[in-house]
Amino acid sequence: MTKKSQLARLRRNLGDAVSTSDEDLARCSLDSARLPFRPDAVVRPQTDDQLQKLLVLANDMRVPLTPRGAGSATTGAVSPVKGGWVLDMTSWDAIHIDATAGMAHVGAGAVTKKINDAAEAKGWFYPPDPSSLKYCTIGGNIATNAGGLRGAKYGVTRDYIYALEGFLPTGEPVRWGAPLKKFASGFNLRDLWIGSEGMLGVVTRATLKLIPKPQARWTCLAAFQNETQALRAVKKLLAARVVPSILEFLDRQSVDCAQRRRGAPFFPKLKTCSLLLLELDGHPAAVRESKQIVQALFKERALGSRNTTDPEKAETLWEARRTCSQAMFQMGDTKLNEDIVVPIQSYEALLRYTLELKKETGLATPTFGHVADGNFHVHLMYDHGDPDQCTRAEVGLQKLMEKVVELGGAITGEHGIGLAKSPFMPLQHTKGEIAAMQRIKDALDPNGILNPGKMFDEFIMWRHPRDYAHTFPWDHR
Amino acid sequence: MTKKSQLARLRRNLGDAVSTSDEDLARCSLDSARLPFRPDAVVRPQTDDQLQKLLVLANDMRVPLTPRGAGSATTGAVSPVKGGWVLDMTSWDAIHIDATAGMAHVGAGAVTKKINDAAEAKGWFYPPDPSSLKYCTIGGNIATNAGGLRGAKYGVTRDYIYALEGFLPTGEPVRWGAPLKKFASGFNLRDLWIGSEGMLGVVTRATLKLIPKPQARWTCLAAFQNETQALRAVKKLLAARVVPSILEFLDRQSVDCAQRRRGAPFFPKLKTCSLLLLELDGHPAAVRESKQIVQALFKERALGSRNTTDPEKAETLWEARRTCSQAMFQMGDTKLNEDIVVPIQSYEALLRYTLELKKETGLATPTFGHVADGNFHVHLMYDHGDPDQCTRAEVGLQKLMEKVVELGGAITGEHGIGLAKSPFMPLQHTKGEIAAMQRIKDALDPNGILNPGKMFDEFIMWRHPRDYAHTFPWDHR
Repeated sequence: MTKKSQLARLRRNLGDAVSTSDEDLARCSLDSARLPFRPDAVVRPQTDDQLQKLLVLANDMRVPLTPRGAGSATTGAVSPVKGGWVLDMTSWDAIHIDATAGMAHVGAGAVTKKINDAAEAKGWFYPPDPSSLKYCTIGGNIATNAGGLRGAKYGVTRDYIYALEGFLPTGEPVRWGAPLKKFASGFNLRDLWIGSEGMLGVVTRATLKLIPKPQARWTCLAAFQNETQALRAVKKLLAARVVPSILEFLDRQSVDCAQRRRGAPFFPKLKTCSLLLLELDGHPAAVRESKQIVQALFKERALGSRNTTDPEKAETLWEARRTCSQAMFQMGDTKLNEDIVVPIQSYEALLRYTLELKKETGLATPTFGHVADGNFHVHLMYDHGDPDQCTRAEVGLQKLMEKVVELGGAITGEHGIGLAKSPFMPLQHTKGEIAAMQRIKDALDPNGILNPGKMFDEFIMWRHPRDYAHTFPWDHR
Repeated sequence: MTKKSQLARLRRNLGDAVSTSDEDLARCSLDSARLPFRPDAVVRPQTDDQLQKLLVLANDMRVPLTPRGAGSATTGAVSPVKGGWVLDMTSWDAIHIDATAGMAHVGAGAVTKKINDAAEAKGWFYPPDPSSLKYCTIGGNIATNAGGLRGAKYGVTRDYIYALEGFLPTGEPVRWGAPLKKFASGFNLRDLWIGSEGMLGVVTRATLKLIPKPQARWTCLAAFQNETQALRAVKKLLAARVVPSILEFLDRQSVDCAQRRRGAPFFPKLKTCSLLLLELDGHPAAVRESKQIVQALFKERALGSRNTTDPEKAETLWEARRTCSQAMFQMGDTKLNEDIVVPIQSYEALLRYTLELKKETGLATPTFGHVADGNFHVHLMYDHGDPDQCTRAEVGLQKLMEKVVELGGAITGEHGIGLAKSPFMPLQHTKGEIAAMQRIKDALDPNGILNPGKMFDEFIMWRHPRDYAHTFPWDHR
């Protein structure tokens, strides 16, 4: 069957839900990894019935179907690498807060920040806060098991999902879990779907767990001589069983970028430093108590610190963290952002390695991260027009991933695999583990139509053109 | 191949790890559901290598293999219903606390209470507390995603698992997740294993999440005129976003049982009542604040209440809750304990229904439960020697399950399906959902050797003899 007749059949069945406009095809050809593959159509089903029809058609004609939310994935997970159709779920954006039960009933296309705003308006709180939260959809968060800054205290997306509704790749409607606080019936396909990157089913709706909003917050920014000093303070803090809601670490390279952009150091007397940005939240008395431990520790170990309970002043303490990521583009027009995880015992070894890697590759390796849970973002900055820099970035990335696994770590803590990390799957998982995952994929998607070509097929992104011109809503260089 | 030659081959390969003693075969023939099926052998592998050999042999000769911990399952989940061999994991009981990382590395056979004791000795806390915690193993907790009293505040077993190590049914060694606080690589088979009742793999070791031990605790017992009054107070409390660490509800039938055993009412002036047992924990100031809300509410709505911060006095407040379960045997020598869940909007309707059911069946239906998460234990008491009572219990159970699903609830919140709840799977799940679960079972266990006959095969327990004589370590009638 030709693509043309496939499309004709799609249109006969789904009518207005089908678009082949240049704008839609371009927009849905890529995500933040900028690896474009043009689909043949973008489909926006409006009802469960239409969505089911779409899945049945895709199976019947063996057309690849790639589900998509906002497209803020960083791995190419929603690039339609095998062509076919893109399933755009952004219009499934209903949000209903059940203030009695402490639950949110949401559509897969609901934007994460809007969910949290709706919850907060009723005194409740949805903690997961990926950095794209103003744009990303809960469906995408579920697909990647998105994390964020509050992970170590509050957990990740998986920890806030009671129920998922949607369709199997073959079109059967299913619900996994239930809008209940406990559920132990049957196999747990709910959690299998979470983090499966749209390869095992399509989520239409979710029921989320909400918790009471923390009453008080205290923010502190502290400067350390170098990474080792900062990380040792972190170890002391965690061993004292302080549980910060946020504990962000910035290495000297990250701080330097932010300071250059700003034109002045964050701590006037310090030309360079490594930073910790810490937030405590909870009952005011509990915050006060932890604050004393933190302040005593920082007094002993930090070169300087500033703190506040005022939300506006806190925002000024956040400046380094908020600006460093975009400021890194001073050091190369292209960024690899590797969301690796290492155990607490290996924090210092990892940071030493980022400096070795800098020396070896001649590329900047600014690193920041959610240090209470060991989820560092190691960056490699390079110019994509410079073939030599590209080669060095490619080699550096491979070495970094090998080192991370050698340190007992994970190649991804919150972004997932998609296309970009597929070459590293064999570093993280044994052949037996990968084969088991593939058997599950085959069992649920026998025709292999749902988001094919991801995770298990090795994709070497360096061999593919990237679209550097495309502007995303979250680009703020 | 005869059973005898299968056994001979097993012995050649696993030697001393194999037992066919009468004692072992009897002990491993059943769990707390008392549905005995005698296995041909009990195997206690001492090493990973031996365990792998066992799985390879079982596949090669197509011998059913049923993994087992302490046997405190309440559903027949570890009864070797298809015969074959039982895999006894109780000797895999290592416990190592990593106080720096806040993790416990444990063997599948480690007893849950011993894990918590070891954690507490280092200032950490492992919250899941199934009522069998002095006896049950973490492997069994993982297999059923065991809950407990602290679920609504602290979550269930699934919420405290970082990594699982073990074997696929076909014998490949695997690790799902990692001893890390974040992990987003590949499909989430870790959580698929959790709650899969030993049907998708064998867990050998787990890495558990620990949290800081709460500093303060306040316990309160409050009496209400009836179930409706108690449940309305619960609704008010939860809508005020109070998050008790424990909130146990006891209906009048449960209270009456405990009072008859005790020979006196819990509140001298109240012949009968419904009870709420509430614990708050956390920072002392946070506890004080919530306490005020609780006390104001109970003052308005309860007929009486008593409270304490003293652990020894608290134990006296726990008397009704601790004794009611065994005291129910006054009303029948056999108990169905149904761990159902309903949404907060249906609490009162459920309790009205237990009274209807009592009238209809003529059997006692005492009900208590973890009311902050809607996980009620509805009991049906009957004499197993009385065929008429058995029939009424069977009919009553079916009706209860239908009602629970009609109310938007779950047929099990923490016990799982096993044999006893298998007839109700089609009430809870659609054919499409069950077929997807079965495809996953087939994908991971193509020869169907691991804990076969559970969950998906309808098992009518009323047609099978039960072993009422067997004494378990947790029997305290």
